[in-house]
Amino acid sequence: MNNRSTSRFLVSALVGAMSASAVAAQWEALPEVAPSPADNPITPAKVELGKMLYFDPRFSATGTVSCDSCHNVMEGGDDHRSTSMGVHGEVGGRNAPTVYNAAFHSSQFWDGRAASLEDQAKGPVVNPVEMGMKDLDSAVDRLRAIPGYRKHFAAAFGDEDPVTADNAAKAVAAYERTLITPDSPFDRYVTGEKTALSEQQVRGMQTFDQLGCTSCHSGANFDGPSLPVGQPMLMKFPTFADNPYVAEYHLMDDKGRAAQTGKTADEHLWRVPTLRNLGYTAPYFHNGSVKNLDEAVRVMAKSQLNKDLSDAQVADVVAFLGGLDGPFPVQIMPRLPATPGDLLP
Amino acid sequence: MNNRSTSRFLVSALVGAMSASAVAAQWEALPEVAPSPADNPITPAKVELGKMLYFDPRFSATGTVSCDSCHNVMEGGDDHRSTSMGVHGEVGGRNAPTVYNAAFHSSQFWDGRAASLEDQAKGPVVNPVEMGMKDLDSAVDRLRAIPGYRKHFAAAFGDEDPVTADNAAKAVAAYERTLITPDSPFDRYVTGEKTALSEQQVRGMQTFDQLGCTSCHSGANFDGPSLPVGQPMLMKFPTFADNPYVAEYHLMDDKGRAAQTGKTADEHLWRVPTLRNLGYTAPYFHNGSVKNLDEAVRVMAKSQLNKDLSDAQVADVVAFLGGLDGPFPVQIMPRLPATPGDLLP
Repeated sequence: MNNRSTSRFLVSALVGAMSASAVAAQWEALPEVAPSPADNPITPAKVELGKMLYFDPRFSATGTVSCDSCHNVMEGGDDHRSTSMGVHGEVGGRNAPTVYNAAFHSSQFWDGRAASLEDQAKGPVVNPVEMGMKDLDSAVDRLRAIPGYRKHFAAAFGDEDPVTADNAAKAVAAYERTLITPDSPFDRYVTGEKTALSEQQVRGMQTFDQLGCTSCHSGANFDGPSLPVGQPMLMKFPTFADNPYVAEYHLMDDKGRAAQTGKTADEHLWRVPTLRNLGYTAPYFHNGSVKNLDEAVRVMAKSQLNKDLSDAQVADVVAFLGGLDGPFPVQIMPRLPATPGDLLP
Repeated sequence: MNNRSTSRFLVSALVGAMSASAVAAQWEALPEVAPSPADNPITPAKVELGKMLYFDPRFSATGTVSCDSCHNVMEGGDDHRSTSMGVHGEVGGRNAPTVYNAAFHSSQFWDGRAASLEDQAKGPVVNPVEMGMKDLDSAVDRLRAIPGYRKHFAAAFGDEDPVTADNAAKAVAAYERTLITPDSPFDRYVTGEKTALSEQQVRGMQTFDQLGCTSCHSGANFDGPSLPVGQPMLMKFPTFADNPYVAEYHLMDDKGRAAQTGKTADEHLWRVPTLRNLGYTAPYFHNGSVKNLDEAVRVMAKSQLNKDLSDAQVADVVAFLGGLDGPFPVQIMPRLPATPGDLLP
């Protein structure tokens, strides 16, 4: 290759790269592996332990509520209730977000108050209306009282005092990083399988983009641009509050991030949720007030973009969103260690 | 082989068969396959559907309680509580029996009031303190409202109106017939692997027999002799009621079968439970009042056989019973069909 043809090649490669990059920036397939923090790399032993802990109801006050109770991985990673029910039939204030692909969020909870999956995992254990333990130490006491767990903690974290709340949270987080759904029809479409989406779905994809949905729901997980861990992608919802949906669905009853920070500037700020697996995660929004996806699409268009969609536009966008569903990982059920009699209440 | 040696061979074979049969009558390995009724043979489609239904919490009033909530197959097939907790934090009156090897019982529930697994499966759905549905029709309405179930019912039961309560119960029963634990150390021991039990376990096995435990806890499942389906193996507990355990553990507060039938003759009659997997199913007895297996063994010896055991006898019997634990079947988690928005409360 002489200098001239090298230049032509470089220009051509550059144009190709630019156009590929322009497309890739807008439509990205979900990675096959979720990112992990440097101090908690995924290992099989950690994932297996995390799966056991995730399904174990013994770390709730009544022994009846596990992570999986509200984030049911056998369905869509949530609980299909408007707001979740924890110990003693207590009901929480917000809709359970799906655990699937939570590994790709830059922050956790609806208000982004937890930086990481590790931080998040400890929250529900001590929440009085979720798992209702008095404190994390009580939960760790129960863990230590189950001899069968010790070898799993040692395999995952070494032999020196491995049974700690931090290690339990790390194991649960490692397991949750395996709960991802790459290879959806959308992912296959954007990586070249042009028949993976139907004509209507492709039309819906264009509509979704042209309406401006992608201004927030961008990136491979449709939860906003890639931000450093702990920096939530927050948006005001509703942005346009002068529409009847706001009263009908009580969209402003909960002040969002401000309920946590107390700051006026944080009122009605919410972490942008993923749009993957919506077919499995009804009802919708932070309060689970909207049952059907078509209505959720209308509410979002009106409240965030001040747009009224035609029925055809709604149908196309809903069809497109269906292309973001699954496939869910095939999982072996964990075996939980036996409860020693002395642990029983 | 001439006639004479044929005779000798036959005699020898006969003696061998007789002694094998004498041993087999007393100590039987659990069959590798559970019996099924003629009108509900096990098929893979039925088992798969049954597993989905077993894990699905949507057929409870609150959408939070499934069969697995109280009969957790990831642990010992029960819930490690004294008595179970159902919808709205309601607490039932009896200890959840393990689902493992229930397929071998000739009747179900602690009082034997259900003839079969099919009959049993419908009970908790409409029990107000368990799953709390108004009636079975309401549960079937929910089933029918989940389109993803239809194809699984059709695969299991054919296309003509397959989504019924009876078929749901048949599918759950078919799944439960796969929840069996042959090949425990005990099973391997009695089928010839003489090192499968330790010396102490073998000693405990002899003690168990000599004390007379086998007079009720006989058969491969240690739940009594093989009886026709629907004919419960009932025994009075406590038989000897003049001991301090009776008050301490409230053994006579619940009248057992009489609470169901109203007959004086049925007072304190209980179905003889299996002794398999006791290491995973603490606490013990119909009211879950005894936390530890050694104490449960003492209580049984005193209340049923009027015998006081030495600590060494208790330790040996407990060691033997440990040889009846597991192994549990490896299971793939079911995938539950999506909840359509219209089904949501």
